[in-house]
Amino acid sequence: MSVQSSTAQNLSFVLEGVHQVKFEDRAVPELRDPHDVLVNVKFTGICGSDVHYWEHGSIGQFVVKDPMVLGHESSGIISKIGSAVTTLKVGDCVAMEPGIPCRRCEPCKAGKYNLCEKMAFAATPPYDGTLAKYYILPEDFCYKLPENIDLQEAAVIEPLSVAVHIVKQANIVPGQSVVVFGAGPVGLLCCAVARAFGSPKVIAVDIQKGRLEFARKYAATATFEPGKVPALENAMRIVKQNDMGPGADVVIDASGAEPSVHTGIHVLRPGGTYVQGGMGRSEISFPIMAACTKELNMKGSFRYGSGDYKLAVNLVASGKVSVKELITGVVKFEDAEQAFKEVKAGKGIKTLIAGVEF
Amino acid sequence: MSVQSSTAQNLSFVLEGVHQVKFEDRAVPELRDPHDVLVNVKFTGICGSDVHYWEHGSIGQFVVKDPMVLGHESSGIISKIGSAVTTLKVGDCVAMEPGIPCRRCEPCKAGKYNLCEKMAFAATPPYDGTLAKYYILPEDFCYKLPENIDLQEAAVIEPLSVAVHIVKQANIVPGQSVVVFGAGPVGLLCCAVARAFGSPKVIAVDIQKGRLEFARKYAATATFEPGKVPALENAMRIVKQNDMGPGADVVIDASGAEPSVHTGIHVLRPGGTYVQGGMGRSEISFPIMAACTKELNMKGSFRYGSGDYKLAVNLVASGKVSVKELITGVVKFEDAEQAFKEVKAGKGIKTLIAGVEF
Amino acid sequence: MSVQSSTAQNLSFVLEGVHQVKFEDRAVPELRDPHDVLVNVKFTGICGSDVHYWEHGSIGQFVVKDPMVLGHESSGIISKIGSAVTTLKVGDCVAMEPGIPCRRCEPCKAGKYNLCEKMAFAATPPYDGTLAKYYILPEDFCYKLPENIDLQEAAVIEPLSVAVHIVKQANIVPGQSVVVFGAGPVGLLCCAVARAFGSPKVIAVDIQKGRLEFARKYAATATFEPGKVPALENAMRIVKQNDMGPGADVVIDASGAEPSVHTGIHVLRPGGTYVQGGMGRSEISFPIMAACTKELNMKGSFRYGSGDYKLAVNLVASGKVSVKELITGVVKFEDAEQAFKEVKAGKGIKTLIAGVEF
Amino acid sequence: MSVQSSTAQNLSFVLEGVHQVKFEDRAVPELRDPHDVLVNVKFTGICGSDVHYWEHGSIGQFVVKDPMVLGHESSGIISKIGSAVTTLKVGDCVAMEPGIPCRRCEPCKAGKYNLCEKMAFAATPPYDGTLAKYYILPEDFCYKLPENIDLQEAAVIEPLSVAVHIVKQANIVPGQSVVVFGAGPVGLLCCAVARAFGSPKVIAVDIQKGRLEFARKYAATATFEPGKVPALENAMRIVKQNDMGPGADVVIDASGAEPSVHTGIHVLRPGGTYVQGGMGRSEISFPIMAACTKELNMKGSFRYGSGDYKLAVNLVASGKVSVKELITGVVKFEDAEQAFKEVKAGKGIKTLIAGVEF
Repeated sequence: MSVQSSTAQNLSFVLEGVHQVKFEDRAVPELRDPHDVLVNVKFTGICGSDVHYWEHGSIGQFVVKDPMVLGHESSGIISKIGSAVTTLKVGDCVAMEPGIPCRRCEPCKAGKYNLCEKMAFAATPPYDGTLAKYYILPEDFCYKLPENIDLQEAAVIEPLSVAVHIVKQANIVPGQSVVVFGAGPVGLLCCAVARAFGSPKVIAVDIQKGRLEFARKYAATATFEPGKVPALENAMRIVKQNDMGPGADVVIDASGAEPSVHTGIHVLRPGGTYVQGGMGRSEISFPIMAACTKELNMKGSFRYGSGDYKLAVNLVASGKVSVKELITGVVKFEDAEQAFKEVKAGKGIKTLIAGVEF
Repeated sequence: MSVQSSTAQNLSFVLEGVHQVKFEDRAVPELRDPHDVLVNVKFTGICGSDVHYWEHGSIGQFVVKDPMVLGHESSGIISKIGSAVTTLKVGDCVAMEPGIPCRRCEPCKAGKYNLCEKMAFAATPPYDGTLAKYYILPEDFCYKLPENIDLQEAAVIEPLSVAVHIVKQANIVPGQSVVVFGAGPVGLLCCAVARAFGSPKVIAVDIQKGRLEFARKYAATATFEPGKVPALENAMRIVKQNDMGPGADVVIDASGAEPSVHTGIHVLRPGGTYVQGGMGRSEISFPIMAACTKELNMKGSFRYGSGDYKLAVNLVASGKVSVKELITGVVKFEDAEQAFKEVKAGKGIKTLIAGVEF
Repeated sequence: MSVQSSTAQNLSFVLEGVHQVKFEDRAVPELRDPHDVLVNVKFTGICGSDVHYWEHGSIGQFVVKDPMVLGHESSGIISKIGSAVTTLKVGDCVAMEPGIPCRRCEPCKAGKYNLCEKMAFAATPPYDGTLAKYYILPEDFCYKLPENIDLQEAAVIEPLSVAVHIVKQANIVPGQSVVVFGAGPVGLLCCAVARAFGSPKVIAVDIQKGRLEFARKYAATATFEPGKVPALENAMRIVKQNDMGPGADVVIDASGAEPSVHTGIHVLRPGGTYVQGGMGRSEISFPIMAACTKELNMKGSFRYGSGDYKLAVNLVASGKVSVKELITGVVKFEDAEQAFKEVKAGKGIKTLIAGVEF
Repeated sequence: MSVQSSTAQNLSFVLEGVHQVKFEDRAVPELRDPHDVLVNVKFTGICGSDVHYWEHGSIGQFVVKDPMVLGHESSGIISKIGSAVTTLKVGDCVAMEPGIPCRRCEPCKAGKYNLCEKMAFAATPPYDGTLAKYYILPEDFCYKLPENIDLQEAAVIEPLSVAVHIVKQANIVPGQSVVVFGAGPVGLLCCAVARAFGSPKVIAVDIQKGRLEFARKYAATATFEPGKVPALENAMRIVKQNDMGPGADVVIDASGAEPSVHTGIHVLRPGGTYVQGGMGRSEISFPIMAACTKELNMKGSFRYGSGDYKLAVNLVASGKVSVKELITGVVKFEDAEQAFKEVKAGKGIKTLIAGVEF
């Protein structure tokens, strides 16, 4: 695999098959709509879904059939604007929201564009991702950075928006206790956002001690390492250790793991709220009678939608959420595959790939 | 087993152990609070939970340890009122809401009294039920019947309130399509209430043809008998046969059966609402990834709460829901056990036990 | 004023100044977007706002500076479709939603496109209206008519959508009592929609006996003619005559008149909901202390948004709302001004102008 | 006026008529219900409504006919408990919620006990207030203080709960901008609570420079002193000075003043939320057309209800809201009238009256 010569216009990191990637020099894309802008991508975070495509070539129904540029957690600098663009100018630094809905279907018009069936999402087949020198977005999916957010932090706005969406699904209000299962990047960010929403008790749960230590320093007010006991017993321990009375107000599962789901349902108070943010197996065992008799509110959370990116930027700008400490590594664009290997190996929390420098 | 002599004051139908019932003459209960009323019970419906106690002596964590009067779906006539009662008088006919919350805990004060942990619910151990000549209730848990609802219909207000609560949990608004799994009494009533809430498409699903035929005549706009195919395939058939576009707006499960739950999750459109009303096994397999990526709203529904009984009475009084055709049998009080046997055998839809006549 | 010759391509009814209208033959508009369709307009209702522009040349901040085609309550037949159109074909009969939002601003993406500041609304300056032979709309703002809705009824879908939006703002659920102030077309339709949403008591209030008689026959369950007494006294009479206990659950003001607003606030129970649908003077006297101590929910309602047109069509198709009896006159296109004069004079309820026939 | 001798059992500060107060030794009240507790009152804040009764003998429909103990913003120490009390013991320090609802009416059971028509509220005729040595409350209306809240701060939990209720009515979520009109105690606390709910921009508006200075140091992120210009012009200045784009997300009026209400309506963005917390005149001029076309959500806010006191305690305990700096004076019980004079004269922010010391 070799990086192409200096005639390269739009160097891109392309997945061709399982564990088969290459650098390809593609044409710089043209603005198709007067509201479009061309972004020079500066940093891109790597996420579990990117790694999953690299390892398996598919996620559920989404199968990579043709070569596809990877990456969707990006920031960049505006390098060209369409004729109708009014809020951005060349040189502006932006966080890039990487999924463009159709704007015309019922979910789009009902304020749920993340549920648009025609969503063109970066690095979800058949749509190319952002690991390229240039990427086209409509103006309203670029969020101009305030001075106190840099381009590295801006790449983390994407997973932060995932966390914002999850916490908004949970309707967290000040005073509520929250238990977050899974202390990977999204789980950690959920802890931070739950705090920003006023939760005085945010318990991070994970099976890795190192992750729990990080979570405690970062945003969780307490942590819990599950014992090898039934889920109900772990749930009772969490409630007791954290003085939660009849149970937690809110549970967020950012793990997708069956034991987490069971413990999460049992740890909730009657009338509590459960949000499924993480994804693992398609089907799992579920304690449905407890969910029914406690009359729980349970919601899925999928990507992010109306207002989420804006709020994520606002939370970082106002200092309510810090993302800098999650960035544990930055590799050069030509070392992109290295980043995938590190994420796969569980090294660090969030590895960024720098933009094409030439 | 013999019914006692005419000196009987408050003849009661008592469960002593599995399949062990007797008639016992108990003292007429005293009013304990100035807001209490004494009700002379006139009709009592038999429900699956009553039968379950009779057959197994317990439901989940609720175990019958001491002899317990059965029954909780009742209507009656006011025979005595406390000194503070202002809205009822002796002789008034009422539907009886059979669960009295503590009124002081957080759920009670937050408008969720069905989640009160101190709830005293008729025929849930250790609280006696309503299959007695007399029963005490606070004034505000008795609903005076308008002239066009008779005492037999009034006994069905209890399961109708269960259905009202389920439909309110589902937030059904006019125009939405609804699929109801399970065409027993509660499922049938859910169909009727969903229609009253403005649903133009209410599909009843059951594995018994006879129930589907009844559902179609009663309140469903269409029915579906699941094929021996995967849940996803049954779901796709329901959507296609009923022209539901991206899927149903709302699913109500009144069955508790695993295949229903799977089909229900798959039949929903992205952003749809699922309410679990029926209870079967404690844990089942669950299609969690579909629930997550479609960002479903899922809720348990437990008994009934604020405003449900009042609305149930209103729906019958205004002719929007009819309950008369669900009453398929009435037995005398002294034949109470016969009613349990019939319900167990699946005979009819709703069997009532008449009140003590002497 | 003369209708132009048979070479006319797109005859249009144009407002030039106060009470100055003319027929003008304009070019048939071109499809600008692959999702656009060209509609041959068949019927157009006349609304108070059309008459207001005709009489005053402006409504609030909206001033007619250049000649503007009038009309926005229309139905028609598809006569041309863009290359991306998939759900409509030439010859389809449709109800026409006449306001096209930008689809890109925050309200649009948050599901509130009726609040879009770039809304292009028919016959609101500077946008031309629908009183022309042809009109361009995006595919998703045309609603294909089911067989049981004809093109005359379809023109009434516009004011019905206004009423649907008002009732949705009011969150009416079955069992709630509703008082509607103003028995003009929108008030009458609000009565009908409130019934469809399950309200068993819908009281129409107006100062014209004839309108109240129509309301009673059409959709109200009772009516009230205000006496010349203070608003609080009228409110108490409404509550007493209609057995509303602590007050009405919901008030809809479709009049914009100060006495209605006062009576409406006073007629509500504590915690009730008030929706302002009608517009009169910019500022009025308001009983703010009652609104505060009763902790009312008060909402404005402006035009219609996500799902309203679809539901309006559904309500008519399913027979829950009937609009035919509101159509009290149909005039030929060349007699369009006559319709304005009749509406101004208060003749009939809804007068339609037929489409250009040549 | 003389304080009675040391035989006093329950010295009380009683309003007899306009500006006529006295100290009266009343019998120590008896526990009436096994859930009751007897509280030895330690500190009581004085509020505008107390002063209003002292000055006018009435507030709206509430008229002081018989002598009435004043005061309702209190903290104290449990000195006796009923037989059913389980969560409090003698010696516990508590914040006292001073309004006891009937627990049986529809609003009570629907989670809106602040709207109970049978509410027994301290110092609202005919109910005595808390300016006495002892006061009876049910257990669940006493909130045990964590160690880091002292009894003086605990007296301020009452107005803080008013602010919590207002902010909850406003549904403030992180990122939203808030404009608060009126920088008296409740307005200041609304600023602090809005910050705790995640608002990054909280603008305090008042006509007194001193209050604005305090607000800025205390909790507002910016302030605004209205100019002598039309309300719309002041509104535009607020929006521009604070970079609020299409307007503020939320307005809280804690003033009750007509110019504030007008400016508040005009400063909101389309779809924004307005909460009326302050009360002045019964009727005022109101810009109803702007409220309608911007489709605002407007709500009254009355006292506090389910969960508000608990959250108020939590906000102080967790350091998210500080109340200490609002306490600008403490007078002895025997100088109670002095406190009323100071509040009337606008001295300080919150004056407390210490409990009876003998």
